[in-house]
Amino acid sequence: MKSQYISELREGQAIRETFVLSKKTIKDKRDGGYYAIVAFSDRTGNIDGISWDSDNLTNISVGDFVFVTGNVAEYSGRLQIVVNSVSVVDAEKIDARDFLPQYSGDIEEVMKAIHGFVAKVKNSDPRRLLDSFFGDKDFVDMFSLAPAAKLVHHAYLGGLAVHTLSVLRLLQSIMSVFDFLNADLLITAGILHDVGKIYEYKYKKNIDISDRGRMLGHIVIGNEMLAEKVRHLSGFPDDLKLKLMHMILSHHGEVEWGSPKQPLFPEALVLHFVDNLDSKMEMMKQVLEKHRGTERQWSDYHPYLEREIYLGDDS
Amino acid sequence: MKSQYISELREGQAIRETFVLSKKTIKDKRDGGYYAIVAFSDRTGNIDGISWDSDNLTNISVGDFVFVTGNVAEYSGRLQIVVNSVSVVDAEKIDARDFLPQYSGDIEEVMKAIHGFVAKVKNSDPRRLLDSFFGDKDFVDMFSLAPAAKLVHHAYLGGLAVHTLSVLRLLQSIMSVFDFLNADLLITAGILHDVGKIYEYKYKKNIDISDRGRMLGHIVIGNEMLAEKVRHLSGFPDDLKLKLMHMILSHHGEVEWGSPKQPLFPEALVLHFVDNLDSKMEMMKQVLEKHRGTERQWSDYHPYLEREIYLGDDS
Amino acid sequence: MKSQYISELREGQAIRETFVLSKKTIKDKRDGGYYAIVAFSDRTGNIDGISWDSDNLTNISVGDFVFVTGNVAEYSGRLQIVVNSVSVVDAEKIDARDFLPQYSGDIEEVMKAIHGFVAKVKNSDPRRLLDSFFGDKDFVDMFSLAPAAKLVHHAYLGGLAVHTLSVLRLLQSIMSVFDFLNADLLITAGILHDVGKIYEYKYKKNIDISDRGRMLGHIVIGNEMLAEKVRHLSGFPDDLKLKLMHMILSHHGEVEWGSPKQPLFPEALVLHFVDNLDSKMEMMKQVLEKHRGTERQWSDYHPYLEREIYLGDDS
Amino acid sequence: MKSQYISELREGQAIRETFVLSKKTIKDKRDGGYYAIVAFSDRTGNIDGISWDSDNLTNISVGDFVFVTGNVAEYSGRLQIVVNSVSVVDAEKIDARDFLPQYSGDIEEVMKAIHGFVAKVKNSDPRRLLDSFFGDKDFVDMFSLAPAAKLVHHAYLGGLAVHTLSVLRLLQSIMSVFDFLNADLLITAGILHDVGKIYEYKYKKNIDISDRGRMLGHIVIGNEMLAEKVRHLSGFPDDLKLKLMHMILSHHGEVEWGSPKQPLFPEALVLHFVDNLDSKMEMMKQVLEKHRGTERQWSDYHPYLEREIYLGDDS
Amino acid sequence: MKSQYISELREGQAIRETFVLSKKTIKDKRDGGYYAIVAFSDRTGNIDGISWDSDNLTNISVGDFVFVTGNVAEYSGRLQIVVNSVSVVDAEKIDARDFLPQYSGDIEEVMKAIHGFVAKVKNSDPRRLLDSFFGDKDFVDMFSLAPAAKLVHHAYLGGLAVHTLSVLRLLQSIMSVFDFLNADLLITAGILHDVGKIYEYKYKKNIDISDRGRMLGHIVIGNEMLAEKVRHLSGFPDDLKLKLMHMILSHHGEVEWGSPKQPLFPEALVLHFVDNLDSKMEMMKQVLEKHRGTERQWSDYHPYLEREIYLGDDS
Amino acid sequence: MKSQYISELREGQAIRETFVLSKKTIKDKRDGGYYAIVAFSDRTGNIDGISWDSDNLTNISVGDFVFVTGNVAEYSGRLQIVVNSVSVVDAEKIDARDFLPQYSGDIEEVMKAIHGFVAKVKNSDPRRLLDSFFGDKDFVDMFSLAPAAKLVHHAYLGGLAVHTLSVLRLLQSIMSVFDFLNADLLITAGILHDVGKIYEYKYKKNIDISDRGRMLGHIVIGNEMLAEKVRHLSGFPDDLKLKLMHMILSHHGEVEWGSPKQPLFPEALVLHFVDNLDSKMEMMKQVLEKHRGTERQWSDYHPYLEREIYLGDDS
Repeated sequence: MKSQYISELREGQAIRETFVLSKKTIKDKRDGGYYAIVAFSDRTGNIDGISWDSDNLTNISVGDFVFVTGNVAEYSGRLQIVVNSVSVVDAEKIDARDFLPQYSGDIEEVMKAIHGFVAKVKNSDPRRLLDSFFGDKDFVDMFSLAPAAKLVHHAYLGGLAVHTLSVLRLLQSIMSVFDFLNADLLITAGILHDVGKIYEYKYKKNIDISDRGRMLGHIVIGNEMLAEKVRHLSGFPDDLKLKLMHMILSHHGEVEWGSPKQPLFPEALVLHFVDNLDSKMEMMKQVLEKHRGTERQWSDYHPYLEREIYLGDDS
Repeated sequence: MKSQYISELREGQAIRETFVLSKKTIKDKRDGGYYAIVAFSDRTGNIDGISWDSDNLTNISVGDFVFVTGNVAEYSGRLQIVVNSVSVVDAEKIDARDFLPQYSGDIEEVMKAIHGFVAKVKNSDPRRLLDSFFGDKDFVDMFSLAPAAKLVHHAYLGGLAVHTLSVLRLLQSIMSVFDFLNADLLITAGILHDVGKIYEYKYKKNIDISDRGRMLGHIVIGNEMLAEKVRHLSGFPDDLKLKLMHMILSHHGEVEWGSPKQPLFPEALVLHFVDNLDSKMEMMKQVLEKHRGTERQWSDYHPYLEREIYLGDDS
Repeated sequence: MKSQYISELREGQAIRETFVLSKKTIKDKRDGGYYAIVAFSDRTGNIDGISWDSDNLTNISVGDFVFVTGNVAEYSGRLQIVVNSVSVVDAEKIDARDFLPQYSGDIEEVMKAIHGFVAKVKNSDPRRLLDSFFGDKDFVDMFSLAPAAKLVHHAYLGGLAVHTLSVLRLLQSIMSVFDFLNADLLITAGILHDVGKIYEYKYKKNIDISDRGRMLGHIVIGNEMLAEKVRHLSGFPDDLKLKLMHMILSHHGEVEWGSPKQPLFPEALVLHFVDNLDSKMEMMKQVLEKHRGTERQWSDYHPYLEREIYLGDDS
Repeated sequence: MKSQYISELREGQAIRETFVLSKKTIKDKRDGGYYAIVAFSDRTGNIDGISWDSDNLTNISVGDFVFVTGNVAEYSGRLQIVVNSVSVVDAEKIDARDFLPQYSGDIEEVMKAIHGFVAKVKNSDPRRLLDSFFGDKDFVDMFSLAPAAKLVHHAYLGGLAVHTLSVLRLLQSIMSVFDFLNADLLITAGILHDVGKIYEYKYKKNIDISDRGRMLGHIVIGNEMLAEKVRHLSGFPDDLKLKLMHMILSHHGEVEWGSPKQPLFPEALVLHFVDNLDSKMEMMKQVLEKHRGTERQWSDYHPYLEREIYLGDDS
Repeated sequence: MKSQYISELREGQAIRETFVLSKKTIKDKRDGGYYAIVAFSDRTGNIDGISWDSDNLTNISVGDFVFVTGNVAEYSGRLQIVVNSVSVVDAEKIDARDFLPQYSGDIEEVMKAIHGFVAKVKNSDPRRLLDSFFGDKDFVDMFSLAPAAKLVHHAYLGGLAVHTLSVLRLLQSIMSVFDFLNADLLITAGILHDVGKIYEYKYKKNIDISDRGRMLGHIVIGNEMLAEKVRHLSGFPDDLKLKLMHMILSHHGEVEWGSPKQPLFPEALVLHFVDNLDSKMEMMKQVLEKHRGTERQWSDYHPYLEREIYLGDDS
Repeated sequence: MKSQYISELREGQAIRETFVLSKKTIKDKRDGGYYAIVAFSDRTGNIDGISWDSDNLTNISVGDFVFVTGNVAEYSGRLQIVVNSVSVVDAEKIDARDFLPQYSGDIEEVMKAIHGFVAKVKNSDPRRLLDSFFGDKDFVDMFSLAPAAKLVHHAYLGGLAVHTLSVLRLLQSIMSVFDFLNADLLITAGILHDVGKIYEYKYKKNIDISDRGRMLGHIVIGNEMLAEKVRHLSGFPDDLKLKLMHMILSHHGEVEWGSPKQPLFPEALVLHFVDNLDSKMEMMKQVLEKHRGTERQWSDYHPYLEREIYLGDDS
């Protein structure tokens, strides 16, 4: 966690903090030599800056993380940073949460609730599998950090966990109506259905699709992750592995939506419905929240929902 | 309710009951004159019959409901009815439940549970509307009798009520997760979404689509029924009527699935998902139940689900 | 009807008329205080204006109808209104024809021709139905005012009547070839097929889709209007009502074009073809008229016709 | 024209006529040697036959046209031909009208009406073109004989001319509404739009698609015929040729319906609509006529119209 | 390999061989007791049989592999086996090649040619990978035995290897034109693209899809196999693994054809084209070979190619 | 060929050359009268110009070819032409290669290679046909000049020949694998499949689709060209003509891709695949070449390939 955020900077403050360099223009000084007009950003906003010495910016590119020293000054009514020094920071040392949009609630609460679902799985085989995932610290770190999408829905740090929890709650609620469903199978697949997204996306400097994501997609990545975990669980039943792989594979529901196989048994069908419902509801909720308090009755055309959303009053 | 069902007839029993005439062949007697080989059916099965006097069958067609007197006799190892008299019965006086497949449980329990949902609607406007439907005895009679489909799912007497109840339970369960939904709106639309089916189908002698069903479909019929009821409720809010009509109209979800409008707000979207899920789950359940106890791993190709269903063991 | 139209204003003229306020910018006076740069519009055009007193504009929004007093002056080569007073006018008192694009011909002639088709209907039942519509002054007022579309074709006041008349002429001409068609049924459905558009659109300040239009569409609205009229006609035949409802419902021809049912008998099929042909021909005509006199051989890509139109000479 | 038709044969009649051999089975005589059980057909029906000498059938195949001599006898209540001689007839010498279903009206009247449309074409260029087609006796013979389809509509000898005339009447009627259309262009294209069908089908022994029809289709064949005729008309305008070729090419309306180009100007659009309407109306008419006098309310599923047709009474 | 095949049996021969029991009917002996009418099959044909002692058939089902002793006799002009003893054989001990259709050529030559392509791969990483597959005897056994499809093309034992070799030859030939392609990558992916089929199908008693095939499909199975092999190759480059997985994943070319990702670089695109071309050409070749020597000009409708194939002479 | 190209002009050079007038703005001189700011272009680039006498530009339009005299001067750091005279040049006298993008290699080598394929055709009939095309100087001139597309691939002068040669090489290579193909048929159809493009495009001033191209497309134009050539070859076999026409017609592969018929025999299928592969590979190659040397891993979205292309390193 950073100690200085852009939105909280005040005139006169001394700066010693990491930002993203978001603009860099080298200009001629009137008296010869060069200076640089720059801008910095973090997840709270942007601020302009000026560096009278342009040499310290020579090997730094827009998009780099930089450690900045300097002071905050006011210039024609706006704050800017008068830069003393700038140096590149290794992206590996960065906490993405400082720079990218993230879940507005407490992600630890979300993870705790997901663990609660893990604890509900009674049968030892699916339980061993879940434990092998959630006993893997690297996995848990990425799972609690990853977004669920680049643009459409849950496109923020923590979005994968938030979406997964919502799917689990919906599965739980639907099982109360369709009581013949295999609860352990459904909960296990619900937890794992999108795990491939931890590698499908990059979420350091920005949220984007990774090479692996573009070439394979989270469905295939998730299946490879599942196979890898199962390999270490001696005596894991073949048919359970097959059903879980099928549920991950078929959770987009139709071949033209990217699932090479349609859901072939009730649990797989329910998982597909719930995943689809949660993502569409999340899009609708975003539209409604964005317009709360306005007088508009209809949203703009939503390119993924392919319709305009009614914003009118409840009745 | 009839007092004599075909599956329960025994040798020597005197017959005074209504059946469907399911076969009629006039034959020459060896000594001149004619006799008739016939068969009768009700929802429990078929039985052959013989009528030595063929005159009483002259104006009766296969498919008619007939009141039969006679006796049950055995002939070459099988039971048959030796007919004394046959006379046509007005189809209007028939209880379809005696002749068509029906819900295997207690339909009164189903209706009671639906009434329970009506009682949950707090807001006076949607409640008045539901009361006007459920205070209409003709409506209630048809609603508790109608099937939900001709072939695909819930294709039996009572199927509409069974499907509606399942939809309501799913809506209720999903509202526990998406707590921002308008419960009164959702429950009211859930109860009414398929009411048009009471006129879309014929369910006297057989279950078939009516002329009105073929020409308009249950979505448009349902909307006309809603408009008619609202007309008698003074001061009913226009926007509530509009939202309910839209929810009935859009519950098939996509234009190519027969909804002229897509769901335009969250409650409409949820209703569509739940209706779709319940019908597909019912189809899967039927396939699984039909194969229970067999050794097959895969069903035949299902023309509506467009796939073969996995029948294997739970894990 | 207004007495002063913007396109006819001349320098020095005194203004006492209603316009739409189409621009409003409050500016500082050099000597303190404020003045307002404004603009007004009606269906004939736009004119700038200046109001040295900005107070009378405080509670007026862009888009409001306003009654303006003042004078027309010239300022750097262009006319503008020097405003004395501005006051909001109740939109209910406005004649939309003063402010929106309208049919270039005489709409009364169009209505008269439609009445001529009504008079051709011989059979008393469809005739009673048409009379109940055309004896309803509110309906006639809206029917002769409504557009037939927001953007694509006949998107002007009176467009609905113009399109309806063209459809009737086409039906009449086709019946001369297919002489087995039921003329009364076809003419009646032709007159009524788009009546739902009087509520599908708003056409006061601008032409836009109404809430009811977005949620239900003109097909469902039209069927509700038909059911309402029929309810007051004692002894109206059920099957005629059913056929007319079906013809309204199916006139878009295919499920994916928004008709929940396809046309199921010849008259319904012909109505669909004629409606489709008239709207496409109107689009082509508009393209050709727009380019008349230019040297272009091909139009731009037309997003609804999904092609470029050939503009070359006749041969 | 034949002088003896199967439906008119009577016991004892001497036979000297051409039929199609429709069955041939060689059997052992009880006393050694062979005889043949045969059957013959023409467009009026079928009749069995027997040939005690099987040698004269050795080189004759089922499907061949054969000249038969013999007598009509009755055998166990049915007529049959006792054959004296059978010899193959060259298919080139056959009049297909004797053996295939044909237009029930007078095809000469149809052709006369089409000539009437040719005479309406005022402009010398399109008129010269039509005259070059209709002055070509081979073309006229085939045009008046060809079917318009193998199965779907107008699938009988003369069907092409009947369909063409109906298209022309519809074009004429629509021009009375859309008076800006180029009448000469439209009539000329209307007459020529399906001429390629004279080579797309075979219609000697049966109605089937020819090799050329399967490989090229009537649209491309028709365009080649048009180009060939135009080549002999000196000074024929390039743009008229281009428009006519485009109208033939685009008359199926959409790429997925087999037209490589969509209609690009109003006359091409109208031709497509009229061609489509006439073929669909013909299908509906056939369904209605087939069920005239029955009590059915609905037809079977029609595979080309993709719906069941309503057969109910007019209202 | 068996030593006795059904097509080579002769009268009087003593039988000691394994067959499939393809028919079993128990009949009453006239003198009390039972006998059995049976039939046996292998890949060369069928033969009837009779077992006067029916007891030895009690626990044997149609479809079982059975070891039969007895003699070949003639009965009313046909050969049959007079059975002495029948006993079930464990399906695991069966060589499927004795009982299922297989490649008509020498599968060892095909495998040798594929090894020739392996040898062409120069770069050590892809070469190590291929060696790890082809050094695995179980893999090689299954790869040389598996079919490439259940019904459509190469639906015989050895079909996978035959198709793979054809794909490799096409890739090789196309690389001679597009010389910028990465040969090692293309050959490696060409060899591995369908390896998942060794588990997608069952090919013991009959050729059918396995549970794993139905639930995952050969694309996902193949990717799991690849990942497993790569895991044992230390230092295998990540990007090569990614490209090969992508090429397996995308070789069906479009999402709606079952590839979750489209080909994203030239080698992946070429592999898709070649796989598609080879399977379609194989279907066409089968149609042409089946009709060789007949007089037909056109095949029946082919359900996978969705057309009728022209069978005419070469020119 | 021009002697002066814009990219080679130098300060002080005297100009006597033809260019395209690409900009023309008339301005007021301070002392009265007018001057013109202009720009000129050829295939090597653009240059600004000034003409103090605007009269000589009165009847000249942007887009015209103009012969310019004047001098090259420098003005604020950039070269411009100070114009003495400008006069329109007849477009017929222009060599399009001077003004449009063209093949970067030697088009004569490409044509020579295509002639090499012609020489491989052994059978006299297809050979006569090819000779009649390539013995026609006008055809050869247009064929070696035409582009293969307006935008997508091979969209430069010579593109048709380059694409045709690539198709021929692919056909040749594939025949080495599928040795049952008719080589003469395939090579002949390969050479002729796109000849209609010489009239589908205009390629004088710019590359655009011609009227004939828009209305008919190259498939139909090519078939008309083929029919015209065949007409002059006495005794040309009907079935060869039919197969070649079919191969031209079906080379887009599917009805929805603009081929009214699907490929119906192996040679037609192979031609379609090869044409499709070559155009897609050309698009991929263009993307890769455009990004050579950049650090990007992924291209922008490609609207025709409908994907982003991977630009990463070879492995």
